[in-house]
Amino acid sequence: MPDTRAQVDGARVLADLNALRGIGAYKTGVHRPTFSEPHMRALEWLAERLPEAGLSATIDGIGNVLGTSRKSGPKLLAGSHLESQNYAGWLDGPLGVVYALEAARIINSDPTERGAVEIAAWCDEEGHFGHFLGSRSYVGRVTEADIDAALDRTSGRTMREALRDAGLAGRTRVTAEAGRHVGYLEAHIEQGRTLESSGLAIGVVTSIVGIWQYRIGFVGEQNHAGTTPMGMRKDAGLALARFCVAIDERFPALSGPRTVWTTGRITLDPGAPSIIPGSADMLFQIRDEDPAVVERLENLLRTMTDEVNHQGRGSVTLERLRTGVPAMMDSTFQQSIEAASDAFADGRSMRMPSGAGHDAQILATIMPAGMLFVPSIGGISHHWSENTADADIVTGAQVFVDTCRRVLGGT
Amino acid sequence: MPDTRAQVDGARVLADLNALRGIGAYKTGVHRPTFSEPHMRALEWLAERLPEAGLSATIDGIGNVLGTSRKSGPKLLAGSHLESQNYAGWLDGPLGVVYALEAARIINSDPTERGAVEIAAWCDEEGHFGHFLGSRSYVGRVTEADIDAALDRTSGRTMREALRDAGLAGRTRVTAEAGRHVGYLEAHIEQGRTLESSGLAIGVVTSIVGIWQYRIGFVGEQNHAGTTPMGMRKDAGLALARFCVAIDERFPALSGPRTVWTTGRITLDPGAPSIIPGSADMLFQIRDEDPAVVERLENLLRTMTDEVNHQGRGSVTLERLRTGVPAMMDSTFQQSIEAASDAFADGRSMRMPSGAGHDAQILATIMPAGMLFVPSIGGISHHWSENTADADIVTGAQVFVDTCRRVLGGT
Repeated sequence: MPDTRAQVDGARVLADLNALRGIGAYKTGVHRPTFSEPHMRALEWLAERLPEAGLSATIDGIGNVLGTSRKSGPKLLAGSHLESQNYAGWLDGPLGVVYALEAARIINSDPTERGAVEIAAWCDEEGHFGHFLGSRSYVGRVTEADIDAALDRTSGRTMREALRDAGLAGRTRVTAEAGRHVGYLEAHIEQGRTLESSGLAIGVVTSIVGIWQYRIGFVGEQNHAGTTPMGMRKDAGLALARFCVAIDERFPALSGPRTVWTTGRITLDPGAPSIIPGSADMLFQIRDEDPAVVERLENLLRTMTDEVNHQGRGSVTLERLRTGVPAMMDSTFQQSIEAASDAFADGRSMRMPSGAGHDAQILATIMPAGMLFVPSIGGISHHWSENTADADIVTGAQVFVDTCRRVLGGT
Repeated sequence: MPDTRAQVDGARVLADLNALRGIGAYKTGVHRPTFSEPHMRALEWLAERLPEAGLSATIDGIGNVLGTSRKSGPKLLAGSHLESQNYAGWLDGPLGVVYALEAARIINSDPTERGAVEIAAWCDEEGHFGHFLGSRSYVGRVTEADIDAALDRTSGRTMREALRDAGLAGRTRVTAEAGRHVGYLEAHIEQGRTLESSGLAIGVVTSIVGIWQYRIGFVGEQNHAGTTPMGMRKDAGLALARFCVAIDERFPALSGPRTVWTTGRITLDPGAPSIIPGSADMLFQIRDEDPAVVERLENLLRTMTDEVNHQGRGSVTLERLRTGVPAMMDSTFQQSIEAASDAFADGRSMRMPSGAGHDAQILATIMPAGMLFVPSIGGISHHWSENTADADIVTGAQVFVDTCRRVLGGT
């Protein structure tokens, strides 16, 4: 019997994504930081569209948009986020929200479809004020004191002030209702080149890697850059540079096939051209899906700091700022995404871990979760030029909706 | 025949230095930035003391204090500066000014002494607003446009505003009168450990090294620290670290015995823990008394940047921001300081270049110039704990006054 149910309307999906691109547009991307005026307009835009997908809309006390259905049967939670990094891309976040909206439009109003898709746009996934504050609030892991302490990392504005200016002060924060959802599904751009370089359309996410973050601090002796002979120096900046190069040389022998590590920030103190740096700091990050690999690498870092401290030309300390918790994606979800890819993308899918963090890793702590990726052109991410081919966006939507049906037991 | 002329009053020298330490005191040092309220009080303090040394005082339109004598005979210009680095030492600057004051007190009022010592306290030697603005104004190398453009590097306040607030707006700037002085003499703390570790009392400065300064800029590819595999990265920060280490390995083979080089500032862009740096900058400085040595080292830097650019993992550019002009100290002045050290410091002197810049290098462009150093305890400089033993301060004053007499032809 031919399937007479509604199919994905590719033009509608692209129109929705472009409508969101018009809110806070910057070049071909957007500038829509958390609680900015364009971010709030994007939340309103979504809230206004939820009724046509059979959902009643709430914007809660932390800025999460939640669409709930009164339809009987199983419920799948789906979504992503609507704020952006500063001057960044148009799809990072909106893609997953618009796919969820399309799935809800198709499934929720049709009595022949089993169950319903409920929608979430999690606030501040991009971390302007914190670390997955929206989804963590939903799973009950954000306290009022956490919100009291949160500051915008760009402007220094308090989160309380931002919530008040956005008209959200005093609203209740919605938390998950135990047992309500069969799971959580999120689509996202890959943010890397793996799918593109393999000629594939869909990434089936197996896990979201953990992020371990460290502060490595060097102490030498601050002195005059003209009057201190080279042999008498304890240059903290040079010690730091040597350490970065040593990491680059020694990590590969102990890392896993997909381990990545990054020194994202270096600070020399006092940072003046005529003064030998007396201290120097680096922010260092390791990402992997396997904590055992990171444990080996952290042990290597400790060995390396011991070596520096025994050389007697200054000291170094290693402080772990953040401990990674890799999140496994549900195997049934992975199978459903793969089956949907077989049906709607000629089987052009591959299993892969996510090197970036996503709200799905937070939801995975309370329910089965799954993620699918669509290709990123040139792997570009967190930049206004980020993009995905229209055809890949539409294919992704078809696979997403079919996955929802499979998870809800309607296929 | 015994020398019946007045001798240095060590207690008076120490009292003067401590009086200046009390103006803008910070711990055992001072915080007396250029044109700050304590700096202006220090200038007034000096101006009030000049008449007792037979000098008439002027504070000119750039904040130089100048004491001029009507005594007949040769005139020697002597001095240093009274502003400090932020939260820095008590002797850096004041030592040379108080020695000059003591010499003027002894020589100018005594008809049996030949000639006179005139005094200068040069404004902004420490470079809050520019580069030796006071002494360069005196030798005619600062334009009104230079002053229009000058900004306080800490606060961003314009120099015009600072001059107006200090009550100096509209005053004439005094410039050197050709042929008036037989030369310029300046005393300073060594700011290094050479005298201390050699057990000597006086450094006879042979030259003031030149400072060459460079910006070395690396461009890689900014990307996501989680989704970009190690093999596909062009990490500008790592390229910079490798370059710093390579400098440390390759410079010694081509440098001179006293060459020094320093990376004082490193900036990664965007400087976020989850982003691979797309560009990175370092401020790099070389100091030497021999431009030929620096030319060799600069050629090495160019070879090294070519090597990086040929590796194809990002690019690097080398930009010279400042070209060093080493200043030779006058040989007659050096001989006079040495002879004075034989007479008053048991010959405990050594010849040495100055690795730090001083106003004497500016005065040396228009008249013979000399400098003498006293020991710095532990070599500490540009820090509030900078110090020199009282006995060394007094010995230095005796050698300084005797040098003045020798240069003026009175010994």
